[in-house]
Amino acid sequence: MRNAIEELEAKGQAARAASRRLAYLSTEIKNRALQNIAENLIGRQEEILTANRIDYEESKSAGMAEAMLDRLMLSESRLEEMAQDVRAVAALPDPVGETFDMRTMPNGLQVGKRRVPLGVIGAIYESRPNVTIDISILCLKSGNAIILRGGREAVHSNAVLAAIVQEAATRAGVPEGWCGFIESTERALVDHMLRMRGTIDLIIPRGGQGLIRKVAENAAMPVVTGGVGVCHTYVDRRADLDKAVAIAYNAKVQRPTVCNALDTLLVHEGVAESYLPLIAMEWAKAGVEMRCDERALKILQPTFGGFRGCPPDALKLVPVADQGWGKEFLALIAAIRVVESLDEALDHIERYGSGHSEAIVTEDYSAGMRFLAEVDSACVYVNASTRFTDGGQFGLGAEVGISTQKFHARGPMGLRELTTYKWTILGDGQIRP
Amino acid sequence: MRNAIEELEAKGQAARAASRRLAYLSTEIKNRALQNIAENLIGRQEEILTANRIDYEESKSAGMAEAMLDRLMLSESRLEEMAQDVRAVAALPDPVGETFDMRTMPNGLQVGKRRVPLGVIGAIYESRPNVTIDISILCLKSGNAIILRGGREAVHSNAVLAAIVQEAATRAGVPEGWCGFIESTERALVDHMLRMRGTIDLIIPRGGQGLIRKVAENAAMPVVTGGVGVCHTYVDRRADLDKAVAIAYNAKVQRPTVCNALDTLLVHEGVAESYLPLIAMEWAKAGVEMRCDERALKILQPTFGGFRGCPPDALKLVPVADQGWGKEFLALIAAIRVVESLDEALDHIERYGSGHSEAIVTEDYSAGMRFLAEVDSACVYVNASTRFTDGGQFGLGAEVGISTQKFHARGPMGLRELTTYKWTILGDGQIRP
Repeated sequence: MRNAIEELEAKGQAARAASRRLAYLSTEIKNRALQNIAENLIGRQEEILTANRIDYEESKSAGMAEAMLDRLMLSESRLEEMAQDVRAVAALPDPVGETFDMRTMPNGLQVGKRRVPLGVIGAIYESRPNVTIDISILCLKSGNAIILRGGREAVHSNAVLAAIVQEAATRAGVPEGWCGFIESTERALVDHMLRMRGTIDLIIPRGGQGLIRKVAENAAMPVVTGGVGVCHTYVDRRADLDKAVAIAYNAKVQRPTVCNALDTLLVHEGVAESYLPLIAMEWAKAGVEMRCDERALKILQPTFGGFRGCPPDALKLVPVADQGWGKEFLALIAAIRVVESLDEALDHIERYGSGHSEAIVTEDYSAGMRFLAEVDSACVYVNASTRFTDGGQFGLGAEVGISTQKFHARGPMGLRELTTYKWTILGDGQIRP
Repeated sequence: MRNAIEELEAKGQAARAASRRLAYLSTEIKNRALQNIAENLIGRQEEILTANRIDYEESKSAGMAEAMLDRLMLSESRLEEMAQDVRAVAALPDPVGETFDMRTMPNGLQVGKRRVPLGVIGAIYESRPNVTIDISILCLKSGNAIILRGGREAVHSNAVLAAIVQEAATRAGVPEGWCGFIESTERALVDHMLRMRGTIDLIIPRGGQGLIRKVAENAAMPVVTGGVGVCHTYVDRRADLDKAVAIAYNAKVQRPTVCNALDTLLVHEGVAESYLPLIAMEWAKAGVEMRCDERALKILQPTFGGFRGCPPDALKLVPVADQGWGKEFLALIAAIRVVESLDEALDHIERYGSGHSEAIVTEDYSAGMRFLAEVDSACVYVNASTRFTDGGQFGLGAEVGISTQKFHARGPMGLRELTTYKWTILGDGQIRP
């Protein structure tokens, strides 16, 4: 254990030292390193798949669930996809060095800001070995050094992937030590890592809620948390009901296991009787369980069975439980509530939302503007599906994650959000009077 | 104590509720409130000065040092200055509502960011009662609610100032509860406040290093720390020596008690023999104590006594102590080191700097560019005094403080740095394919 901590500290110091040079490394070298990584993912696939096979067999013997095993497993086609992602990041503009807010002061000083990397980023993650590649390439492109600490279950895969990244980068001229991989899976190492303020500038946890909470509560340095999305869609009394059906259907059904999927549907009482049967029928066909408040239940129960060809046994209609609001389902389940007004919808979102993504469907200009102004979430939509909350969909190219905190970065985080700035001041002898 | 905590919690809840309305309050109302505050500072000065007199007498009896007493004391002219500062903030542009990074995606979605307040800001501060006004007006203008917790020694002054702020704002139409003032001076209240994550979005500590460290280490929410500046000026071998004398003199002498004043002078060996006597003579006249490394001492000691009219007893020349680098002096003291190269200067700054402000004096273009690129500090200067690190000098209008952290904001923080953003997405029925 003591050796493992010393190794972690040594890798931290090496990353710190490398980060100074990495900060002004040319885009050309960084992109060459990325191209090398993509080539290695294809060229060394035997080695990767062999290591991955060991992790897979060990986890299977240990009784890992099928869905988790699937996440763990790499294959030729998955490596090909990963290589494509690496090339896509190489093609993105380099955020480092951008100069902005430049102005000339009356005394002739030229004052401005220059975008620079954060320094050393610590990644603590579970399960999926592709995170080793994802985080490495985003940090490399944004000029950050990195300490990687993956989960026990993928340690063989992660070790090979990290070695491949290191070899590819060194060959391109990236300073050694920029990417430290921690092989020991001792749990106490994570605790130690969270106290390495001064060495690690930012921690990014990737994994289950337990891991994320542990990191957020114990880290001595800033953490980018996120990912928990209790997402609301509000159908206003002036909604175009066809759009409202399409949007709520898409938000719930298109990919129910992700954080930007719909969890709660709020419907204005003025349209509830006409709208609810329409969406319920569509959702029923897709197998969505609907957890309704009393008023929604009253509207849906009688129509049920009869309505427009929906087989009665397909409709999963249940009363919402006490404390049934504000849940992230990550499944084909939706809570439904009828509200008296936009105000009641806003209050509900304020009280039960997680600050991720919320949408209003309305043709009423003022209602849309109020929703945009008053909902305090990372992403606020008028007449669109919350499923668009995604770095790629927002034009960021690549995504580090989705932040639900307000500090530093909010919503989808791209390369730019892995940087900070410094003020640069050009003078010709100015002194302060 | 229990009552005091309940009161703190209640004020936190009230601030949270008010912050929702404050987020989209018109600039007109906020500016009217600021004008009212300025008027109150003049119109109710009797009341303020009476309360301040009580704090002053109590602190004097308790044996407070003269410099601290001076910070505590208000006067007609100080109130007039404070009123002018309030009017200056009213005249600044409102950062809230600014829309930026707007783009239209191929599917027609209009995706952009809108600047919004952070929410509720907690201020924990000591001594100077003007901080009550400073923080209140900056938070009000940036749309943030606030919880104020001032020090015991200024509690009467702070209570009157907070009441004046509250009355002025309410009269202008700002929602009640936006400004909560904590009158109890129980120390345990601060500990409780630091755990109010979910109610308070950001903590700003203002005071001595002990307070700032305590807050930074114990707060469950983000903290903006800063203020500690170990500032370096490096005189390159290609420096214009006249500029180098003027810049180092200004950086050390113009106001030695502040964080952006020079602490360590690094001089290239190629110019040390010609430059050091020049700056030493000027510094000696101003009474600066010089803590020199061996080489600087060797250059300065022989010339001393003889050189150009400087009386021998005026020169305070001492060898730098072991571990004498990396100190923030806040006084007429400077450490001096002769270096072999720009690289050695960069290494010194990397090792001993606090990431605040550093300057190079040089006529060599490449040396200036390298210094700008490689020094990882909030503010990096070429040929100017580090004393310019200041919100007003950088054109921000008002300043909340100077951040030496990398996350969220770095260097002088203005109104904009008290805000975050949300993504706004305007659609006409888009769903994700």
